[in-house]
Amino acid sequence: MKQLDALLNPKSIAVIGASADHSKTSGRPVSYLLKHGFSGAIYPVNPKATEIQGLTCYASVEALPEAPDVGLVLLNAKRSVDAVRSLAKLGCKAAVVLASGFAEAGEGGQDLQEELKEAAGAMRILGPNTIGLVNLSARIPLSASGALEVSDLPAGHVAVVSQSGGILGALLSRAAGRGIGLSSLISTSNEVDLEVSDFIDYLVDDENTKVIALYLESIRNPQRFREVAIRAREAGKPLVVFKIGRSEAGASAASSHTGALAGEDRVYDAFFRELGVIRANTFDEFLDIPAVLVAGRKLAGRRVAILTSTGGAGTLIADSLGMNHFDTPAPDADTAEKLRALQGDTPTALDRNPIDVTLAGLQPELLRQAIRTLLASDSYDALVVIIGSSGLAMPDLVVGAIQDCLDTNDKPVLAYVSPYAPDTLKRLNSAGIPGFSSPESCSAVLEALHFTGQPLLAGQAEPGIALPDMTGLGEGSIDESTAKALFSQAGIPVPASRVVSSREEAVQAARELGQPVVLKVLDAELLHKSDIGGVALHLNADTIGERLEQMIEDVARHVGRRPDRFLVEAMVGGGHELILGANRDALGTAILLGAGGVTAELFKDTTLCLLPEQGGLTLEQARAMMQKLTTWPLLDGYRGSVHRDTEALAQAIVNFSALIAALNDRVLTSEINPLFVLPEGQGVVAADAVLVLEQERAEDSAGERHYG
Amino acid sequence: MKQLDALLNPKSIAVIGASADHSKTSGRPVSYLLKHGFSGAIYPVNPKATEIQGLTCYASVEALPEAPDVGLVLLNAKRSVDAVRSLAKLGCKAAVVLASGFAEAGEGGQDLQEELKEAAGAMRILGPNTIGLVNLSARIPLSASGALEVSDLPAGHVAVVSQSGGILGALLSRAAGRGIGLSSLISTSNEVDLEVSDFIDYLVDDENTKVIALYLESIRNPQRFREVAIRAREAGKPLVVFKIGRSEAGASAASSHTGALAGEDRVYDAFFRELGVIRANTFDEFLDIPAVLVAGRKLAGRRVAILTSTGGAGTLIADSLGMNHFDTPAPDADTAEKLRALQGDTPTALDRNPIDVTLAGLQPELLRQAIRTLLASDSYDALVVIIGSSGLAMPDLVVGAIQDCLDTNDKPVLAYVSPYAPDTLKRLNSAGIPGFSSPESCSAVLEALHFTGQPLLAGQAEPGIALPDMTGLGEGSIDESTAKALFSQAGIPVPASRVVSSREEAVQAARELGQPVVLKVLDAELLHKSDIGGVALHLNADTIGERLEQMIEDVARHVGRRPDRFLVEAMVGGGHELILGANRDALGTAILLGAGGVTAELFKDTTLCLLPEQGGLTLEQARAMMQKLTTWPLLDGYRGSVHRDTEALAQAIVNFSALIAALNDRVLTSEINPLFVLPEGQGVVAADAVLVLEQERAEDSAGERHYG
Repeated sequence: MKQLDALLNPKSIAVIGASADHSKTSGRPVSYLLKHGFSGAIYPVNPKATEIQGLTCYASVEALPEAPDVGLVLLNAKRSVDAVRSLAKLGCKAAVVLASGFAEAGEGGQDLQEELKEAAGAMRILGPNTIGLVNLSARIPLSASGALEVSDLPAGHVAVVSQSGGILGALLSRAAGRGIGLSSLISTSNEVDLEVSDFIDYLVDDENTKVIALYLESIRNPQRFREVAIRAREAGKPLVVFKIGRSEAGASAASSHTGALAGEDRVYDAFFRELGVIRANTFDEFLDIPAVLVAGRKLAGRRVAILTSTGGAGTLIADSLGMNHFDTPAPDADTAEKLRALQGDTPTALDRNPIDVTLAGLQPELLRQAIRTLLASDSYDALVVIIGSSGLAMPDLVVGAIQDCLDTNDKPVLAYVSPYAPDTLKRLNSAGIPGFSSPESCSAVLEALHFTGQPLLAGQAEPGIALPDMTGLGEGSIDESTAKALFSQAGIPVPASRVVSSREEAVQAARELGQPVVLKVLDAELLHKSDIGGVALHLNADTIGERLEQMIEDVARHVGRRPDRFLVEAMVGGGHELILGANRDALGTAILLGAGGVTAELFKDTTLCLLPEQGGLTLEQARAMMQKLTTWPLLDGYRGSVHRDTEALAQAIVNFSALIAALNDRVLTSEINPLFVLPEGQGVVAADAVLVLEQERAEDSAGERHYG
Repeated sequence: MKQLDALLNPKSIAVIGASADHSKTSGRPVSYLLKHGFSGAIYPVNPKATEIQGLTCYASVEALPEAPDVGLVLLNAKRSVDAVRSLAKLGCKAAVVLASGFAEAGEGGQDLQEELKEAAGAMRILGPNTIGLVNLSARIPLSASGALEVSDLPAGHVAVVSQSGGILGALLSRAAGRGIGLSSLISTSNEVDLEVSDFIDYLVDDENTKVIALYLESIRNPQRFREVAIRAREAGKPLVVFKIGRSEAGASAASSHTGALAGEDRVYDAFFRELGVIRANTFDEFLDIPAVLVAGRKLAGRRVAILTSTGGAGTLIADSLGMNHFDTPAPDADTAEKLRALQGDTPTALDRNPIDVTLAGLQPELLRQAIRTLLASDSYDALVVIIGSSGLAMPDLVVGAIQDCLDTNDKPVLAYVSPYAPDTLKRLNSAGIPGFSSPESCSAVLEALHFTGQPLLAGQAEPGIALPDMTGLGEGSIDESTAKALFSQAGIPVPASRVVSSREEAVQAARELGQPVVLKVLDAELLHKSDIGGVALHLNADTIGERLEQMIEDVARHVGRRPDRFLVEAMVGGGHELILGANRDALGTAILLGAGGVTAELFKDTTLCLLPEQGGLTLEQARAMMQKLTTWPLLDGYRGSVHRDTEALAQAIVNFSALIAALNDRVLTSEINPLFVLPEGQGVVAADAVLVLEQERAEDSAGERHYG
C-alpha cells in the first residue's frame, strides 16, 4: 500500500527521457507537471540536456540527487528495461513505463516484458504500454496524454481505472467537459505488475474517491477482483464497469451444451452482478452512472416524479421511464393539494405527473417549493427536474433552486436538459446535481441506483449433504454410470439402472427394473450418444435384447468399434425438462440452469451463477436462478398447469454445485441434460450425466484455486 | 399545396395579439421575424398599440391593408376563434393558432376546437396548441419558441415535423448545437386541420428537404400516412420516426390471444418497417440518423474499416460494431500493401483493423491517402474515422482530409470523436461529415443506412383463391363451425367434422369420421371453451356418448345453461403448433403469426405484418413472416427434426389474409390457434377458429376503409 501511495502521491518524480521539446510526446510530462502545479521535486533525466523548462536535467538515473518516489520512463522498450533496473537499484518506489513493444507486440515483446519484471525487482511497475496516471485530487499528472493540455480539470470523487491507455484521455476530457470531478485516473494496460484490482484495493481507502469506474478488457485474477470488489462494496464505494470484448464468441469447442450456452460475456455479466458491480451498457453510461452515484443519494423504489417547464420533454422522459419499468404516478391527494396551493392564479396543471410548471417555472420560489414538496412526498422515490429553454436563460436560478432542496432528504434528484446546453450540463454536475441530455440516461442511472440498493445473494453454502468419495476418478470424460453414481451420492436423484455387457444381462436388467427402460451405450469417450444411434427408449424385457444387438451395429458403423458396455435405466416420464451444468472458464466455474428441449435452446433461456470461493451455492441463490428463467412460470403452475417440485430442484442445484465445488476445480465441464422436474412432492431426476475432469492435482496444491 | 406553400413561404404575415414587450411570449414572434431577417410584410395586430418594433400596428384584423398569407394568432383560445374567423373572411390563406385550451383540455376544449374548425372554413389551420413552425431555408420563424433566441440557426436539408410543440424547441437547439442544418421545423400538435402527413406530402416536393424526421405521438390517418410515406420513399427522401407512447399496454380486453400479443407499439413497429420508415430507438438517434442520411451515401454491406489515431477508441468502436453484427475485417492483401507503402519508416500497424495511425496521424497527406485507400478497397462498405485528442488540436486538418476524399465513391464515412469536443462535432456535421460522440451512435446510424438499402416487401396479393360468399354472416363472434367453413372455402384446410346436437348424433359422427375425434361445445358466445370444460380429446364412437353427457354438465355448471350444439372433429396429431391471427387497431389490420403453446407464449415469439390497402399479403411477405420467428428453425428441420410443410403454411397465411381483406374490414379479430403445420407435403390444419365481426356496413360505404 505504501508503494502505491508513493506512486499516486509522490513527493519526487524523475522523468527519464524527458525532452525539452514540448511538441514531442516526451516533452509533455514535465510541462504537464508544472502546468498542473505539482509542488514536489521534478528531476528530468536526459544526457543531452542540462536544463529542461527551468529544471536541472540529469545525465542518468545514477546521477539523480536522491531516489525519487516515482520514475516516469519515456524511453523505448529496450532502454526502458535498463532505466527500470537503474531506478530499482537506486531505491525508487515505483516506475511508470509508457513504452509499447512489450507483451502486446507478440513473442519478442513478451520476453522483454519478463525482463522488465525481473529488472524491477521489488519496485512496483505501472504498465508497460500505459499512458500513465493522473491524480486529480493532488493535481499530479504522470502522463503524456494530450488531454492534459486542458487547464481546467475538475477534481472530484470518481476514480477511473482503465486497462486501455488510449481511452484514458477520452475519459479525462469527457469528465472535464461534463463537470464530473475525478479523483484519479490510472491506465494499467499490460499489467506486468500492478493490475486493476491493486488500484481498486488502494482506492477503497482513498478518502477522495467515492465511486470507482473500471474500463476493462479482461480480468487477469478473478479471485483477487472478487476480494477487492467485496471490500469496495463493504466500504460503500460502488464499482461501475464498462467491459469490451462483448462481441467475442464464447468458449468454443465445448464438449457440452453448458459451455456453448454460458458464453464468455454472459459469465462476466453474472460475475459482475453477483458482486454488485454495475455494468454500463453504453460508453455514455460509463460516465452517467458514476455522475449519479457520486451524489450518494438512495433510491428506495421505482416511483419517479417529473417536474418540467416544458410539456414535450416531460412526456418524453415519462415515456422513457415507463419503457424501463419505472412508475410515474400522479401526485397523491395531499401532495396535489400542496402543489395547487403553490400555484396561486396561474392556470398550470400541477396535479398530474409530469408536473408542468410551464408558466410558473420562472418564479424561483415556486420552483423551489415544488421541488421540496415532491421530494417530501411519500408518493415518490426520485425526482427528475426538466430544464427547458426558459430555464436555460437563467441556469443559476434552476441549479440554485435544486441545490437549495437537496437537504430535504436523500432521494435521488436528476436534471434533464432538453435544449442543447453543454454548459448547463457542466454547471449542474459541478454543483453535484447529475445532469443528462439523453432521456435514456435518466432511466439507466435510476436503474443503476436501483441495482446498488439490492442486497447480494452471497454467503457460502454449507453443503448439507455427505459428499461422496471422489478420489481415483481419473481424468477426462467420466462415463455416465460413474458420473450418475457420484451425483446420486451427492443427493441428486438418478433413475434406477444396471450396467450390462450382453443381451442376456440386458433382458435380466429390464426384468428387474420392472418398468419401461432406456438402453444407452456406456462409453466415456462417446459424448453424443444420440447422434450415433446409442440411445433407445420405451424398451422392456421382451424388446431390449434385439434392440441391443441393433445398437451394437449402429454404433459400430458410426465409430468403427463395437461397444461392449450399456446402461439399462428406468425411463422417466412426465417431467419438465431443464439443463443443469457447470463450466469453467477464465473467471471461475459457472453453474448454469436453463430450459431444456429444442425450443428453449433457440431462446437461450439460461441463467448463470458463479461458484463462490469456497463451497457451492445457497438455496436462496438456487431459487433466484430458477426464478430468473423466462420459463419459470412453467414450473410454477402457469395457466393451471401442474406445479413442479421446485424445492427439490433448488436442492438439486445446491447439491450439484456443492459436488462441483468439492471436486476442487477439477471439473472442466459437467452437465445434467435433461434434468426432469417432476410434479410437486415427486422430486427431480437426472436422466443423463456428463462430467469432464482435468488431471488430479498434487497434494500440496489441494484447497487452492487456480484460474486461467 | 398552394395553401401550404403560403404557410411555409409567406410573403406577408399578420401577428394577431403581438405585444411590444419582448419579455412576453406574445412579444417574441415579431422580434424573431425581424431578427432572422424575414423580408416580407409584417403586420402586428393589437388594439392597444400603434407601433411595435418600428412596424405599424393595426387595431384589428379587419383594419389590415391586405389579406396576409399567414395569420399568426397569439390570443387565448376563445379570442383565437374570433381572430381565425376574421382572417378567413379577409381571405388569409392559413393561420397558426398557438393557444392551448382546445381538444387537449377535455370536453369544453373539444367544442371550442370544433368551433375553430368551422370558423376557419377553407383557410388552413396549423394547431391549435402549437409552437408554430420555422422555415429555416427561407429564415421565416412563425413561432414563439425561446429556441429562436439563438441567431445562428444553420439551414440544411433535414425537415422536422413534430406532434409535440414542446420538443420542437429542443430539436431546433440540438440540431443547431450539433451543426445539423434543418430545412423546416413544424409543430402540428392538435391537428384540427393540417396534420403530419400533409407536411410530409409537402416536404417530398420541397427542394430544400432531403430527409424528413417525425416526432410522433400517434397517427390519426394511417392510410394517408401510408400514401405519403410511399411517395417519400419513391422520391428518395427517407423518413425517420421517433414515436412516444411506447410503454403503453396494447389493446386490452382482447377476445383473442392475437389482440394481446399484437400490442399497439409492436403494430407501429411493423407499420413503419413495412413502409421503410426508420424508427429511432433513442432520442439521440432521432438526430444522429438524419445527420447521416442527409449525406446521401449508400451502405452496400456490413464490412466497416476503422481508421484511428488512438488505439483505445478504435477497439471501442470495433467492439460496438461487432455487438451489432457488423464485420471489421483486416485489410485484404492489396489494401494492406497500399497502406504499408504509405507509412514509410513509421512503425505503425496499418495492416489490421482498426487501422492505427497513432504516430502517423498528424501528417495530413498520409491521413488523406489512408482514407482514400480504405474507401477504394473492395474489402469495405463503410469507413469510421476516429478523431483523438491529437486530431482535436487541429480539427481543420482532419475535417479537411476527410472532405477531400469524399469524392472517391459514395460509401458512408462517419467520424467518431473520442474526447469531449462539441465544437469539432459541430464542425464535422457542418462540413457534411456525420460526427458522433457515442460508439453506439455509429452502429445505430450504420444499421439505419443498412435498413434504407433493403427492398420493401410491398405489392398487393392476388388472392389466387376463390373467396367464399360472405354475406349474411351476421355480427359479433361467429361460431367455430361457420368460421371453419369460411376458412376452408378460403383454402385453409380444416379437419373433417360434424355438427351434432345429441349423444346419438355424436356417436354416429365419430363412427363416420372413423378415427380419433375431438368433441367441442359449439356456441359463438363461448370463446374460451377449454376453461369451461367444453373440449375433450382422444374420443371414439365408444367413448364419445358418455363424454358428451359429461360436457353438458360441466359447461352448464360454468355458464349456467346447457349447451345443445357440439362439434365432432377428426383429431389432428404430429403437427407443429402455430398461431395465425388478425387484429384491427387504430393503424389498420395486422396479421400475426406466432409460435404456439405455452413456452412460446412466454417468449412472445410473434411477428406482425399489416394488411395492405387492397387485398391480402403476398407469398413473399408470408415467407418473410415465417422466417422472422425465433422458432423458424423448428419448421425448417432444426437439428435433424422433420421438415414442415412451410409452403403450405405460406399459402395458408396468404389465404387467411385474403379472407380477412375480403371481409372488408369487418373483422375485429380472428384467430387460428393452433394452426398445425404437418410434415412436408402434408399441409396445414386449422384446429380451432375464432372470428369476431363488427356490424355489416351500409352498401354505399363498401370498399372504403375507416380507421379509429
